[in-house]
Amino acid sequence: VITRAECEERDAADPLAHLRERFLLPPGVIYLDGNSLGALPAGVPERIRITVEEQWGKGLIRSWNDAGWVDLPRRVGDRIAGLVGARPGTVVACDSTSINLFKSVEAALTLAPDRRVILTDSGNFPTDLYVMAGVAARHGMEVRSPAPEEVAGSIDGEVAMVALTQVDYRTGRLHDLPEITALAHAAGALSVWDLAHSAGVMPIDLEAAGVDLAVGCGYKYLNGGPGAPAFLYVAPRHLERFHNPIQGWFGHVAPFEFRPDFEAAPGVDRARVGTPHLLSLAALDAALDAFDDVDLREVRVKSVDLTELFLALVDERLDGMGFTVASPRAPSRRGSQVSLRHPEGYAIVQALIERGVIGDFRAPDLCRFGFSPPYLRFVDVWDAVDELVEVMANEVWRDGRHRVRSAVT
Amino acid sequence: VITRAECEERDAADPLAHLRERFLLPPGVIYLDGNSLGALPAGVPERIRITVEEQWGKGLIRSWNDAGWVDLPRRVGDRIAGLVGARPGTVVACDSTSINLFKSVEAALTLAPDRRVILTDSGNFPTDLYVMAGVAARHGMEVRSPAPEEVAGSIDGEVAMVALTQVDYRTGRLHDLPEITALAHAAGALSVWDLAHSAGVMPIDLEAAGVDLAVGCGYKYLNGGPGAPAFLYVAPRHLERFHNPIQGWFGHVAPFEFRPDFEAAPGVDRARVGTPHLLSLAALDAALDAFDDVDLREVRVKSVDLTELFLALVDERLDGMGFTVASPRAPSRRGSQVSLRHPEGYAIVQALIERGVIGDFRAPDLCRFGFSPPYLRFVDVWDAVDELVEVMANEVWRDGRHRVRSAVT
Repeated sequence: VITRAECEERDAADPLAHLRERFLLPPGVIYLDGNSLGALPAGVPERIRITVEEQWGKGLIRSWNDAGWVDLPRRVGDRIAGLVGARPGTVVACDSTSINLFKSVEAALTLAPDRRVILTDSGNFPTDLYVMAGVAARHGMEVRSPAPEEVAGSIDGEVAMVALTQVDYRTGRLHDLPEITALAHAAGALSVWDLAHSAGVMPIDLEAAGVDLAVGCGYKYLNGGPGAPAFLYVAPRHLERFHNPIQGWFGHVAPFEFRPDFEAAPGVDRARVGTPHLLSLAALDAALDAFDDVDLREVRVKSVDLTELFLALVDERLDGMGFTVASPRAPSRRGSQVSLRHPEGYAIVQALIERGVIGDFRAPDLCRFGFSPPYLRFVDVWDAVDELVEVMANEVWRDGRHRVRSAVT
Repeated sequence: VITRAECEERDAADPLAHLRERFLLPPGVIYLDGNSLGALPAGVPERIRITVEEQWGKGLIRSWNDAGWVDLPRRVGDRIAGLVGARPGTVVACDSTSINLFKSVEAALTLAPDRRVILTDSGNFPTDLYVMAGVAARHGMEVRSPAPEEVAGSIDGEVAMVALTQVDYRTGRLHDLPEITALAHAAGALSVWDLAHSAGVMPIDLEAAGVDLAVGCGYKYLNGGPGAPAFLYVAPRHLERFHNPIQGWFGHVAPFEFRPDFEAAPGVDRARVGTPHLLSLAALDAALDAFDDVDLREVRVKSVDLTELFLALVDERLDGMGFTVASPRAPSRRGSQVSLRHPEGYAIVQALIERGVIGDFRAPDLCRFGFSPPYLRFVDVWDAVDELVEVMANEVWRDGRHRVRSAVT
């Protein structure tokens, strides 16, 4: 039997325990939804106040230069590069993940012009599937989306691009990024990775794996705030030929010379389009301070420990209550998330939220629990399962059953 | 001779004078660059504080529903609709102007599939030209860009789309939106308007003019902050056939049902793509409070009065100092901006900024002065010209001559 006291001991011994102070967490909440919207890093409110009141309010237009606004997408990109195994100058923070994926998938037209197939998997996040379908329809290409486990066997000489999300948003299943990238290359295809559910919560080495293009989300494990700008990585070898389908002035070699003809910036700035959303971008920049001096290998170790503990407690205390584990059991095949299926999943998640344990629900029956190692403790995991036991034992979930379904969770 | 006292009297009689209190303006600054980045509206800091500290920090993921984040792009869009003569449900606030223009120009493929020419003018803002060139190159279309005054005569039966910016960013020249729209329609072409330099500073009636599509900027006269989300208008008659080339989940009919296949939202939400940049969007929403109970016809009257006063003072006090007026003299052909050409323009603008009069410079010789009626006074115009006289008379501008050219201004 796993006791709460044991969890307290693990927290006391946790080398990352001090990172929790880098976040402003509301009292009475156990937050297991950092895979959807990361918690508020401590430095963000003051950074945003300065950006709004000092830089915008007092500096006005001068802040584009004086406060370094104009280069912020690249500077934030360089910070993210350090978290995903990319060198400076290959990542830019801008736009949304969907828009950056659009740019990346369209790049197949110029980087792999002789092939017409985009290979993804059926479990990919819907926006990824929508973007690919849109590009394919527009350019006479074909999208193939076998089951995730069949992707490796589906890479053939017709494939222009293998475009996958590393961690499945529903189950937390983790694709083998280096292996699939190698298979893609062996077949002469490009590899594009969506790191939305993996960046910031595990070591990623894009350059070592030889990944061609990657995108990711600023507001999940990177904690950049609601709708934080996303990022886009272009391998150095493709920078010269990477053609941004949306040719905007911030992707121009000299935006402020206002030339009539487009000439793409030489580096990854060519992936930019319009004026950066500065307030959202400044929040992301400040949020990344939470990663200062953090070794993502240690984050991954704790991530595995947290999810293993959660699964052990589920096995021990929720047996016979109708749950099945939807996530891979092997930690090496799992991101920082555990999902449980239950026919009353929606009502259960609502009842948990009511008690301060915030996970989320995905139809038809999936209860998702995300574990963000910088601000979660082992006792949080124990307490969360304890609340879940309570919700099940006393059928508290019946209270949540008839609650109106809300848009997001 | 126009005296400062006369300007004070005009301020005392100005029915919009009270609007200045709706902004936080730094002391010692006369801000003539609201056409580039609008000043900080008074309600923004607190709104942003609430969004960051309360909604994100404490509400966390729940705020997508509880704080109404999910619908904010459309609610802000409806507020902007009221400023540009559009009905609710036809405008959405999202992404950047460049990206929204990309969506709009690509729409020619589905709304005017039999024609291959995009007609613009050579004075259009560079990002507009870049976006059109990119779309044209990708789809085998042709961009024609005659001089602005030759546009009307260039609309023929080959033109799919007439895509113009209403107010020229350099000179302030104002296109006749209703007339050109009517000419486009008479030739069977679509009309697309970029309202970046006109929205919020003059009455616009998109619906009365029958405009097909329009885009605009959130951070100029709408004062939404650096990189505020832009907006996009789709005429009700096109909503069903408007096809967003970037198919993302927020443009889906049911984003939170996570269906594998894309089905566009029935209304203008189909123009959305990814997760809204909430902090930037919340600032824009709060900024629009400055337009509560404001009649844009009165704003336009004051705008004309301010620019006429500026020109009269330039004529009176800067004669023989090497300036030429680059803006149209007739107020009906001019936006809320006056531009002066001078061979030492860069140094002159720098010297003015040094003295607290903030305009900006566009190569090779253009000094731009924008007049945002809600926060500018007639005495500000008088004082600005007085400083300009000083800068010229004592050759103070020589101080600014060797200053390093900065990126933006």
